Parts: sequence; structure tokens; C-alpha cells
Amino acid sequence: MNKISLAIHGGAGTIVRNKLNADLEKLYREGLQRALDKGYSVLEKKGAALEAVKIAVMELEDNELFNAGKGSVFTNRGTHEMDASIMEGKELRAGAVGAVRNIRNPIALAEKIMLQSGHVFLGGEGAIEFAKQAGIELVEDAYFFSQFRFDQWKAVRDSDEFRLDHDIHLQDKKFGTVGAVAYDFEGNLAAATSTGGMTNKKFGRMGDTPVIGSGTYANNKTCAISCTGNGEIFLRTVAAYDVSALMEYKGYSLHHAMEEVVMKKLLPMEGDGGMIGIDAQGNIAMLFNSSGMYRGAKSSDGRNEVAIYKE
Amino acid sequence: MNKISLAIHGGAGTIVRNKLNADLEKLYREGLQRALDKGYSVLEKKGAALEAVKIAVMELEDNELFNAGKGSVFTNRGTHEMDASIMEGKELRAGAVGAVRNIRNPIALAEKIMLQSGHVFLGGEGAIEFAKQAGIELVEDAYFFSQFRFDQWKAVRDSDEFRLDHDIHLQDKKFGTVGAVAYDFEGNLAAATSTGGMTNKKFGRMGDTPVIGSGTYANNKTCAISCTGNGEIFLRTVAAYDVSALMEYKGYSLHHAMEEVVMKKLLPMEGDGGMIGIDAQGNIAMLFNSSGMYRGAKSSDGRNEVAIYKE
Repeated sequence: MNKISLAIHGGAGTIVRNKLNADLEKLYREGLQRALDKGYSVLEKKGAALEAVKIAVMELEDNELFNAGKGSVFTNRGTHEMDASIMEGKELRAGAVGAVRNIRNPIALAEKIMLQSGHVFLGGEGAIEFAKQAGIELVEDAYFFSQFRFDQWKAVRDSDEFRLDHDIHLQDKKFGTVGAVAYDFEGNLAAATSTGGMTNKKFGRMGDTPVIGSGTYANNKTCAISCTGNGEIFLRTVAAYDVSALMEYKGYSLHHAMEEVVMKKLLPMEGDGGMIGIDAQGNIAMLFNSSGMYRGAKSSDGRNEVAIYKE
Repeated sequence: MNKISLAIHGGAGTIVRNKLNADLEKLYREGLQRALDKGYSVLEKKGAALEAVKIAVMELEDNELFNAGKGSVFTNRGTHEMDASIMEGKELRAGAVGAVRNIRNPIALAEKIMLQSGHVFLGGEGAIEFAKQAGIELVEDAYFFSQFRFDQWKAVRDSDEFRLDHDIHLQDKKFGTVGAVAYDFEGNLAAATSTGGMTNKKFGRMGDTPVIGSGTYANNKTCAISCTGNGEIFLRTVAAYDVSALMEYKGYSLHHAMEEVVMKKLLPMEGDGGMIGIDAQGNIAMLFNSSGMYRGAKSSDGRNEVAIYKE
């Protein structure tokens, strides 16, 4: 049997071990494992990497613990504006959506944009109009309400501050984004990323998540990458594609290329966060320069793990 | 005196010599020369590359011949939605705006986003709100009206077609985008790109123009790049940053790197269009795989030219 592999993340940042209580940690770990299992089962049935990353990300979007889909943070207007992108590595097709509301699973919309719109990148009200025509599930604003996120927002909304999904309760600073990368039975790569962005964000702010090359990239020649972190810096460094370029042009391994980008390019610019990747042989790498990253990896080598902190 | 240089473009595509009448060609050439002179005079006064590209692009945005700012095409709703981005190469700061309306000079807004918003990428209504607070000039919808663009739109609006600023009158196919790259007295690079997008576009479609890494990129270590063409393909290939990566990681010259991207990556994917660039020594390159690109170059070497067709 050919190798198959999947990696996921649920955001990175300052996640301090003794601030995350045991019950909540258990819920995070279970949520990660469920997304990992769902995505991996697609690959086991010889499904496509593209489908696997979509399914894994949808599971994370449906889990209110993570800042994407249902668990999306509040904007400064009390709304929820989400960004997502998806890319497959065989033909370099991609789909992305920015600042969209009322979409249950933005990653499913990004895939539809890729497959049916004739475009790559749609935004705002127009993207919702496309979603309706494409049969994507829309939900009421109330679907995105959670007391936890509301309290988080209340604590900052009257300030001019925007927060990177700063967890008021836990006093940890984490970048709420979810993502997945996969390598399928046919050797194809795919990557997907989805987020609710920053708490109290305004002005239609978008980070790296909807940007092909920055938050998401996939190319069968090199790797599939999904990022999470301080989006502005990931945009300015074109972080996801930079990993691919280092592999293609300098012959770096996936891990070496990720180390170069995460530690030597992002960190000096205060680009806190991390990324997950899979190379063209199905090898997984997960790297972050913050104190933690919600993450998981599962492969036909027998690997099956979820983790939160640094080792 | 140190070297200074500036290059601009006003879009690429199928521009057929005998279809562009002499009077109109003269107007295009004059418009290009004016933008070139205005941007270059900033550099001559030892102004910053960032200011030079902004001034050159604003001049093109104010010229209704070009599809950006005043000359922006109509969307399928009869509105004008514009995209723009700007980047400077010293600290890799960047600003971008997507799907914005009623902004006279989207490139000036992109610069304000870079300098004052704390973010890189704003979109839609939120971007307008920021523009108001930042003192950016807003204009009525009527400002963007021109009979030429309206007739162009009328010819396609009842179809499902979107057009890449397809010129109905001239029967040429051109990608309406404007852009500039500059190298200043202090050796700093900058790039700027602005567009009205595709005639009859819908769903809040954005191309590569507002995307750092795809439509625009600048890095003092390598080059400044501004692209024009079939935006979806430029997004999927991360075209602007790819030139920089080939220079940084493979040691290619600017021209060699642009040739690799424009001819060997974009063309096989039907990524029609081109790009302009300046390297870290102030050398200019302008390359396209279509039959023409409105362009101009001026430098302290004595170069001062505008051109439309292939040589």
C-alpha cells in the first residue's frame, strides 16, 4: 500500500500548560483527534487529499473550541467574518474567500469557488451571493454565538484593541486558525486553512488565511502548507509559498525549509505562530515559534498523535 | 549621483497595432509619459521609492484610459470595485485593499493601510470606513462613469461573461491594471499595483492585484515587481514573489527570473500578461507573454521611453 498522511492544526500562540485546565485540554485533544480521524478516513478509502483536508477542516470549523466556523470570534460590530482558502498540488488549483459572513463552513465555500466560480478569490457580500447559488449551507448569526467568545469580545470591544483570539480566561495568547495538509494514495498534496480572525477586528481586516501563498499553498513538486499566526507578518513574508520555494530552488527538506521560514524569517519580524506541512513523499513536519500549537498527525507509518505544547 | 529608476505599466494583453488608432495611441503614450515623469520627479528630488510608485500609480488611476481608479470597469451591478496593493523593500511593509468602492485613489488607501491601520489587508465596506477615518478622498459613483466603459459593460452585462477589460471597440483583449516599481537615491525599492478588475465581474471577485506576493512584491535584497494579467493564474503561481525567490535562492538575474515566471510558469497555465521589475542595483526589466503591454521606463542612465507593442 502507498503511504498516506494527514496533519492538522487548531492555532498557535502562547498556550501555557498550567493555565489550560485538564477538562478543557481533554476537549481540545478530543476535537483534534476527531478531525484527524475524519480526514484520515478519507485517505484510507483512497479518497483525494483535497477531500481529506476539507473534511478535517470542516470538523474543526464545527467545533466551537476553535476560532473558525462556529467558534469564530466577534468583530468590533458583534458580527463574525471568516476567511478560508484551499489548494491542491497537482494542477495548482485554488479557492479562497475573505471577510464572509453566515457561512457554516467557509472551507467548503473556498472549495466551491475553486471548482465552480471560474475565479480563485471572492470576498464579502459577493461571496455570499455565490455561496447561495452554489448550494453552500448558510446559517443565522446566532449560530456563531458562544458565551465564551462573547465574553472575550466584551472585554476588548470598547477599546481600540483587536486581539489575536487572545484568551481572556486563560491569559494565553493564541492565534485561532485551523488547517490541514494531506498526502493521498495517488501522491497528491492539498492544503486548507480557515479562521474567524482577530477578536474585535474592524475595517474588513483579512490576515494570511485567505491568501494563497501566505496562509495556504500546495504543489505536488514540493509540499502542502497551512499556517497559523500573526497574519500580517505571514502576508509580508509570503510564508507558505516561501517554504515551497526553498525546497524547489535550494533543495531544502521540508523541515529545513520550515525552520528557515518560521525561525529565521518570521520570528525576527515578530511573526509569532507556526505551520504544518507534508512533502512530496508524504513526510509530515509541524513547527512553531510560540509556546504551543494545537496539532495532530496521522499516517500509514503508524503515527497517530495530537499535541498542544512544545515537547 | 546614485542611480535612480522607475518603471510603470498600464496593463497587458492582446493589443493589436492596427486596431489602436493614432489619436488614441497618442493619448495612451502621453498618459504613460505623464505618470513616468511625475513618479520620476519624486526620485529626482531624493524622494522615496514608496512615494514615487504611489504618485505614478495615482496619475494612472486619475486617467480614465486605464482600468484603475477613475477608469475602472463596471461590475455586473453597474458599480466599480477596485483592488490595490503597495509594498516597500526595506522593512517589507505592505498595504492592500480589496473590493473597495468610492475611493478616488485606491493606491493612496493601500499606503495608508500600510502606515496607519496596524494591518496589511482590508476589504469592502470596512476598508471604506477606515478610508474615511484616515482622510482618504472619497468620490461619488458618478466619478467613475465613462461612456466607453459603460458601453463595454452594456455589451456583456446580460451575459454570464466577465471580461478582462476586453476592449469591445478595439477588439483587443487587454488586462487593465496599472502599476509602478521604483529604486530611489538611498537604494530602496518599492512596488505598487491598482486595478478596477474585470468588466462585469461579480461575487466580489478579486484577482492578484491586492495580493502581496502575487500582484505586488518588493524586497531590497532582490527586486520590486508589479504584475498585470489573468489574475487567477498569477494568484495560483504566486508570481511576484516567485521572481524574488528565484533571484534570492537560485541567484538568477531579474530578467532571467522574470522570464522563468512569465514564459515558463504563467504561459503554460494560460496566464497571459506580464510584469515590470527593478532589481537591487536599479536595473529595469519589463516582460510580457501577450502581444502588448502599456509600459514606460525612466532612469538616471538616461533612459526615458514609453512603449505599447513588442519591439
